[in-house]
Amino acid sequence: MKKLTIGLFGFGVVGEGIYQVLKDKPALNAEIKRIVIKDDSKVRNAPAELFSTRAEDILEDQDINVVIELISDAEAAFTIIEQAFKRKKHVVSANKKLIAEQLTYLLALQKDNEVSFLYEAAVCGSVPIIRNLEEYFDNDLLNYVSGIVNGTTNYILTKMGNEKQSYADALSAAQSSGFAEADPTADVEGFDAASKLSIMALHAFGKIIQPHTVVKKGITAIQSADFNYAQEKDYTIKLIAKSFYDASKKHLTATVLPTFIPLKNTLALVDNEYNGVLIGSSLSDEQFLYGKGAGRFPTSSAVLSDLSALLYDYHYANRKLAHTPFDTNLLGRVKIYVNYSSYTGDIHQLEKQFKQVHERFQSENYSFIIGELDLLTLSKTGWLNDSSVSVIAFD
Amino acid sequence: MKKLTIGLFGFGVVGEGIYQVLKDKPALNAEIKRIVIKDDSKVRNAPAELFSTRAEDILEDQDINVVIELISDAEAAFTIIEQAFKRKKHVVSANKKLIAEQLTYLLALQKDNEVSFLYEAAVCGSVPIIRNLEEYFDNDLLNYVSGIVNGTTNYILTKMGNEKQSYADALSAAQSSGFAEADPTADVEGFDAASKLSIMALHAFGKIIQPHTVVKKGITAIQSADFNYAQEKDYTIKLIAKSFYDASKKHLTATVLPTFIPLKNTLALVDNEYNGVLIGSSLSDEQFLYGKGAGRFPTSSAVLSDLSALLYDYHYANRKLAHTPFDTNLLGRVKIYVNYSSYTGDIHQLEKQFKQVHERFQSENYSFIIGELDLLTLSKTGWLNDSSVSVIAFD
Repeated sequence: MKKLTIGLFGFGVVGEGIYQVLKDKPALNAEIKRIVIKDDSKVRNAPAELFSTRAEDILEDQDINVVIELISDAEAAFTIIEQAFKRKKHVVSANKKLIAEQLTYLLALQKDNEVSFLYEAAVCGSVPIIRNLEEYFDNDLLNYVSGIVNGTTNYILTKMGNEKQSYADALSAAQSSGFAEADPTADVEGFDAASKLSIMALHAFGKIIQPHTVVKKGITAIQSADFNYAQEKDYTIKLIAKSFYDASKKHLTATVLPTFIPLKNTLALVDNEYNGVLIGSSLSDEQFLYGKGAGRFPTSSAVLSDLSALLYDYHYANRKLAHTPFDTNLLGRVKIYVNYSSYTGDIHQLEKQFKQVHERFQSENYSFIIGELDLLTLSKTGWLNDSSVSVIAFD
Repeated sequence: MKKLTIGLFGFGVVGEGIYQVLKDKPALNAEIKRIVIKDDSKVRNAPAELFSTRAEDILEDQDINVVIELISDAEAAFTIIEQAFKRKKHVVSANKKLIAEQLTYLLALQKDNEVSFLYEAAVCGSVPIIRNLEEYFDNDLLNYVSGIVNGTTNYILTKMGNEKQSYADALSAAQSSGFAEADPTADVEGFDAASKLSIMALHAFGKIIQPHTVVKKGITAIQSADFNYAQEKDYTIKLIAKSFYDASKKHLTATVLPTFIPLKNTLALVDNEYNGVLIGSSLSDEQFLYGKGAGRFPTSSAVLSDLSALLYDYHYANRKLAHTPFDTNLLGRVKIYVNYSSYTGDIHQLEKQFKQVHERFQSENYSFIIGELDLLTLSKTGWLNDSSVSVIAFD
């Protein structure tokens, strides 16, 4: 078994956790040789001689064969990963936004340099979704991957649903509990979920879906009335990231949408900051993976498991990427609920978008329409970026 | 990528399913060359020239590099696996009883012959528990693996709990739905769960636990009164296979016991024939894997995933086996409920086994005691094999 000599970028709670575990477990044959940080004035729980502020101290060190990248700045992270690959170093990263956006380039560069690029921590923290999709469902005829992949929005929706809090109050609670950032945009607008969906779609279906092409709506438009409606019908509301493969039409759709989930459905059980992903395949029915999606321990655990995989030369083979017999497009149709009570646009125009209307309700304070429309149409309506209209899909 | 040339033992629903998939997907680079069956008078959905009744037609064929063993006769299966290893053939098996009982011998023989021995289908069908424990939790400090691993008993307990059926009626229902065998002993007495627990303990903790040493009680003694008690306390009753590592005392315990599970607990959600396993680790909190544990599709899916793994020379490295710093023993203590309403033994003696009594109830038709006792004591009481006494652990 070879030895991992590691250069670590970033020494926040995750970086420090990994340093501690590797120090306490010499049997792992993995040692951190250098830690590059931005600010060297802070007191750190590790010997001073390990630290540097110069990226070159890792990138140009020929002894270092593994780079762990745990910094928040996506642009700096991109340069680090790119340079590490070019210097034949393996990379472990948790930077989902960067990975999702640069998948094509980074996969090619990785392949050219014959190194591993592992990022289990980027999707659902310690829930081993990437490697399971990559390895375990290879022969399976996969139908869908559908789940709750963002803990922040799930925490907020749980508060809104279970404790009847308003969106604003639930967001504040999430922020004070450390489950939401001061600027929560990436989470509450669904960007984070779209990045994760994009990464999952690669490993599930062998397709690179640019995150900005995902049909996406965040949770900022959801109103108490929507939860009242859900409760009447024995639903709850979850932000669901879903990629679905229609074998008969040979097309793959990718959506991040608030969704009514029947209370009997497994995903309804995923509350608070937890993540859960359903994997549907024609050979084994539905499978479910569940756990904490973010935070110090889950992220450290995922990074450590990637290190462990590197010890036996593991790399994502991306076997599905080469021979996927379908294209990604928006051919699908969805059943949605649109609460237009506060909509500032033309309601007649809104109604006209539906191919089929199932239900309509109108009152002074609360009006909604339930019906079916093409995903392509939905993506063009403008509702998805309009916080005056609440759009909720049906599972 | 090399090619798998397969010899298949057994052509039931699983074998036929695998044959179909491999035929339909030539890209998998895996072909069934020979199928050995017991009875060649049946009409089969595959070309007649593939079939034989002579094991040698597979074992002595030097082209065949993979043996898939899917027969029910454990003794015959043992010989097949042994012979296959000696002839340097990889083996994929779903025979949990055989595997659990012969782990030490088979692992050594496999190692000597430098072949792979994969058995994901042996535990929880398509739920990828073995490879996840083996690969994913390598660096993690694992605390416990606890789950519902037998679909038959879970189906019966679900019927008893949700529909107030008696054990006998629920068993009949399971038999007529195809979820229980005509002779259900292996399932309802917990033997099957103990075998699976033994296999999981190897991959979770690197310990070989003989299935007969597992502290085990089946579900045949459970009475309606037990479910009434459970309901009052917001519990349900599940047959839980659990291995638990106590780091401070450095000991591992393995039990298969009917257990009161709080309705809020994830395992309470696993109903009917489904399986679900919780993995507890100090680095990532609790994770949960869930899916169908048996049947044509789940088993085929797991076998196919093992084949896929063989294509890239995968084997269980059993890294944990070499350096486990603890012994297996029965040092633990459990909190249990004992319903002795129908007990034919000495009740005074029964009470004396408890180290501490928490609750006691006695009436004409229903009497129980709740308290704590040592696992070692419990294993010697005789209650575990006595269907006149219902023993239920607390989670």
